[in-house]
Amino acid sequence: MTNIHNVTVAGGGVLGSQIAYQSAFKGKKVTIYDINDQAVAAAEERVKNLRDSYKRDINATDEQFDAGLNNMSFTADMAEAVKNADLVIEAVPEKPSIKHDFYQSLAKLAPEDTIFTSNSSTYVPSTFAPDTGRPDKFLNMHFANQVWLNNTAEIMGSEQTDPKVFNEIVDYAKEIGMVPIVLKKEQPGYVLNTLLIPLLNAAAHLWGHDIADPETVDKTWMIGTGAPMGPFAIFDVVGLRTAFNITKEQQGDNPDFKPFMDKIQKMMDEGKTGKDSGEGFYTYPNPAFADPDFLKA
Amino acid sequence: MTNIHNVTVAGGGVLGSQIAYQSAFKGKKVTIYDINDQAVAAAEERVKNLRDSYKRDINATDEQFDAGLNNMSFTADMAEAVKNADLVIEAVPEKPSIKHDFYQSLAKLAPEDTIFTSNSSTYVPSTFAPDTGRPDKFLNMHFANQVWLNNTAEIMGSEQTDPKVFNEIVDYAKEIGMVPIVLKKEQPGYVLNTLLIPLLNAAAHLWGHDIADPETVDKTWMIGTGAPMGPFAIFDVVGLRTAFNITKEQQGDNPDFKPFMDKIQKMMDEGKTGKDSGEGFYTYPNPAFADPDFLKA
Repeated sequence: MTNIHNVTVAGGGVLGSQIAYQSAFKGKKVTIYDINDQAVAAAEERVKNLRDSYKRDINATDEQFDAGLNNMSFTADMAEAVKNADLVIEAVPEKPSIKHDFYQSLAKLAPEDTIFTSNSSTYVPSTFAPDTGRPDKFLNMHFANQVWLNNTAEIMGSEQTDPKVFNEIVDYAKEIGMVPIVLKKEQPGYVLNTLLIPLLNAAAHLWGHDIADPETVDKTWMIGTGAPMGPFAIFDVVGLRTAFNITKEQQGDNPDFKPFMDKIQKMMDEGKTGKDSGEGFYTYPNPAFADPDFLKA
Repeated sequence: MTNIHNVTVAGGGVLGSQIAYQSAFKGKKVTIYDINDQAVAAAEERVKNLRDSYKRDINATDEQFDAGLNNMSFTADMAEAVKNADLVIEAVPEKPSIKHDFYQSLAKLAPEDTIFTSNSSTYVPSTFAPDTGRPDKFLNMHFANQVWLNNTAEIMGSEQTDPKVFNEIVDYAKEIGMVPIVLKKEQPGYVLNTLLIPLLNAAAHLWGHDIADPETVDKTWMIGTGAPMGPFAIFDVVGLRTAFNITKEQQGDNPDFKPFMDKIQKMMDEGKTGKDSGEGFYTYPNPAFADPDFLKA
């Protein structure tokens, strides 16, 4: 068991509110800090709106959900938020300037023993370690959307992270119902995106260059590997806007990806932005790939 | 329905004997041609040894299996083998010189209407089209090991392939119980390996550079995508020797892959060559990743 009881989540956006509530649901005392009263109110609303998902997806009772809520508080006062924190989980916007500023402020306000973790998707911990005033007590713990279902926590330290602190965070992840994914070195993209992005890029190449249709690609992957969905179904879950932005950021003007991006752009112009909009490469809620006959012809 | 009734499979190795028998099992008259009496006898033995697999894996009866056998003949006489062939499926060794010679001989002996397909894993059809004397009637139809279970046929023409012939082969694939995977252009690696190899390379990077353990990588992939196995379980199925050879061929002396290849070499030296040997990254027949608890901690 860890010594982490009081947890502050900084940033009550989609992921921050989920990480915070999941911790509270598992018995931690959790404070969400956000930058002003409006942001704090929105965070509280997001947390309360998780009730149906917890009931539907993991069979939580109303009593259990309420017990989690009772473990939570909300504030726009950073000093108040972190003064008793054993752990601060940072889930502020993914902009380096915002994160640098945040850690520099936090370093001054948090007790010196407080551990800091970052939920950053794209920055390794050494990027912000110098701002924290405690590089030995700073590492990344990265969650996936719908944390109660997609319950991995990818854990990655810098070379300066104390192994004892690292192990404490691994144990914390377990305490809040996560499967800890341990990285032994810094790796942009952690494990999941390091694996996933090359697969999606290969699929983008096949479709972008008119070598094979999205349904053909997905069918091949599903039959060949036994997976429940193929790369284009994954694009629909990720959302075409996000896929477009990530491809643009990583590939820039690489001409190999231009046909793919042009095709994605055309789909977005037609309102086909993925599963959330009801249509992307497939039409939801009953996409063709989920029909058992999809694999038979 | 196609006009393809008489089929000759050239090369009675592991894949050739499976492709031949699957065609015969589905009612085609099939001749296996191989280079000498010894090779022909070995092919006949391989075909007969498929009985247990067909009974176990797809519930074939002995009568059904025998009916398939009755559709088959075997010969080391190429002229005899192809004189009435509507289709010749080439499954000779994956060496360009052998394939060039084979197609040049075949071109002289086969009727001018005979369609030729290649099961080549690595060469696109334009490589051998000039040898065939009929580039419009030549394309690739690529099968996976255990064709009765892994029933995809990746179909890829060159720019010279007649679309009517291409469609006839798509229909042929369906007639023999395959799911046709249609490629609209030449693509080395077809669809499946175009997707799979970047995923396996990313996994090789993570383990090779000591960023994450094989079990961590597989667990992340299985939880993150719902797949029944991760990249290292796939390496075990492919076999470490094959994985080593493909990596060596594709990456040469690329230093990013050296740590992975050194580690694979060490495992092979210890006799851990994958699922077929009983041990690779996992121990068989009950590998850790197949245990439901694998995903829980």
